[in-house]
Amino acid sequence: MVEDVHFRLTNGWATPAEVGHRALAGALSDLAAMGAEPGEAYLVLGLPHGFAEERALELVREAIALGAETGTAIAGGDVVVAPVLTVSVTAVGWAQTEQELIGRDGAVHGDIVGVTGRLGGAAAGLAVLEGRAEATPGAEAALRRVRRPRPRLREGRALAGAGVHAMIDLSDGLAADAGHIGRSSGAHLRLRLATLPLEDGVQEIAAELDIPAWRLAAGAGDDYELCFCASPGNRARVEEAVSAQGDVEVSWIGEVIPGAPGATLSDERGDDVRVEGFEHRW
Amino acid sequence: MVEDVHFRLTNGWATPAEVGHRALAGALSDLAAMGAEPGEAYLVLGLPHGFAEERALELVREAIALGAETGTAIAGGDVVVAPVLTVSVTAVGWAQTEQELIGRDGAVHGDIVGVTGRLGGAAAGLAVLEGRAEATPGAEAALRRVRRPRPRLREGRALAGAGVHAMIDLSDGLAADAGHIGRSSGAHLRLRLATLPLEDGVQEIAAELDIPAWRLAAGAGDDYELCFCASPGNRARVEEAVSAQGDVEVSWIGEVIPGAPGATLSDERGDDVRVEGFEHRW
Repeated sequence: MVEDVHFRLTNGWATPAEVGHRALAGALSDLAAMGAEPGEAYLVLGLPHGFAEERALELVREAIALGAETGTAIAGGDVVVAPVLTVSVTAVGWAQTEQELIGRDGAVHGDIVGVTGRLGGAAAGLAVLEGRAEATPGAEAALRRVRRPRPRLREGRALAGAGVHAMIDLSDGLAADAGHIGRSSGAHLRLRLATLPLEDGVQEIAAELDIPAWRLAAGAGDDYELCFCASPGNRARVEEAVSAQGDVEVSWIGEVIPGAPGATLSDERGDDVRVEGFEHRW
Repeated sequence: MVEDVHFRLTNGWATPAEVGHRALAGALSDLAAMGAEPGEAYLVLGLPHGFAEERALELVREAIALGAETGTAIAGGDVVVAPVLTVSVTAVGWAQTEQELIGRDGAVHGDIVGVTGRLGGAAAGLAVLEGRAEATPGAEAALRRVRRPRPRLREGRALAGAGVHAMIDLSDGLAADAGHIGRSSGAHLRLRLATLPLEDGVQEIAAELDIPAWRLAAGAGDDYELCFCASPGNRARVEEAVSAQGDVEVSWIGEVIPGAPGATLSDERGDDVRVEGFEHRW
């Protein structure tokens, strides 16, 4: 994660501690998407000249704290000089056998498509941080998505154990990431925008921005929820496996149908909707 | 490794392929210093806007080639946008038991201090690349040190197997790195500058720069040779273990003696010499 590309340190955007949390969370999210058990993580810090040691330590301490919380050992790393704050995290995950790990390539015709948790918060929070929307009390959950995303590690392992066919974490945005599953699987995912579970505050921030809420939920990344495909007969098992992990719920948002490999999205009338990438970088 | 901190891409300094080689070599050198068997490496590329895909592929291909040569699998990674070319490599190494790995902390009073190969080439090559010295045919070996350093993996494992007490790779420079061993071990390393094995061309380039050659060999980093401490009774076994790996030889350059934890260096008359950091960054 690179300063002024993936985060800013200015104007209360994020603290070094939040950058440390976010960098490790993003790496762990990729392990969550495979149903892997987190093992070790390695942290390389690129620090600009004059970056205070105390701020660098704050960053590392927060990564260690998230590591402890998730069972991830920060096992090594390096510190170098860089033009802007740069945090490179490599996280290694484990499984007893390769078969327990879930890829992006197993979706089959007839599957139903689910997501964990709620969407759109990261893009909505970013709009607040960038000054395009107001920082109302209702925006708290959205801001937390940007600054302290939670990798869905337990949920990912539960979903793998419940036999989902394909899985990905939502880092590029639902439309793009579902497309990755579709192309890897040679399958077509059809998603219904009206069924997307929205994070608190997303509806209000979308109204402020004068765009439909689904643009924040499907067109922007960094929510770090999981999207997966499962047999319809497995629906109850999948729901129970996830809700047994805590307060994260599953929503069913589409199906795998005949069509070109990839993903498309439909509005309430069943018409095609083109999700253009929401401006979630600058 | 960060553009304009650890390398340049301009004026024939290095090609993207050389940057890929060098970034992996630097990470593998840390494994060599522990006597570890290389396993997997993970490569994160930060690419500036407009960096040509073909040049990025050239970089990655070269890392894969060095990986194949050394038995290292490039097992994953990421590509992000960054202000300058940034290559972050995490290399993981293995041993059957923790006891087989050598740290920096095992040097004891009475040990002799050795190095593999030849020193000063990287600093001399850098002087040529920076235009401070001439690119004579004799500078070839020195330039290769900068652009295509060789991690001493086989030699490191052989040294570990031969029972050396402490080991480090020369990335900061001999004076600094021997100091790391000394401080970690609570021991004092005394090194004789006149015994340092010099890379081809170093003597000539030092003369051009009007500095003693040992300043390039002891005061500058990135030679990626190994420095180690061993029992005097183990001398022949250590030499044989290393020379059995190829054409790299061991030189004995000092002893572990009573004194403050750290390392000091002596000239031909046995007087203390202060090795100031040679200007090997800009």
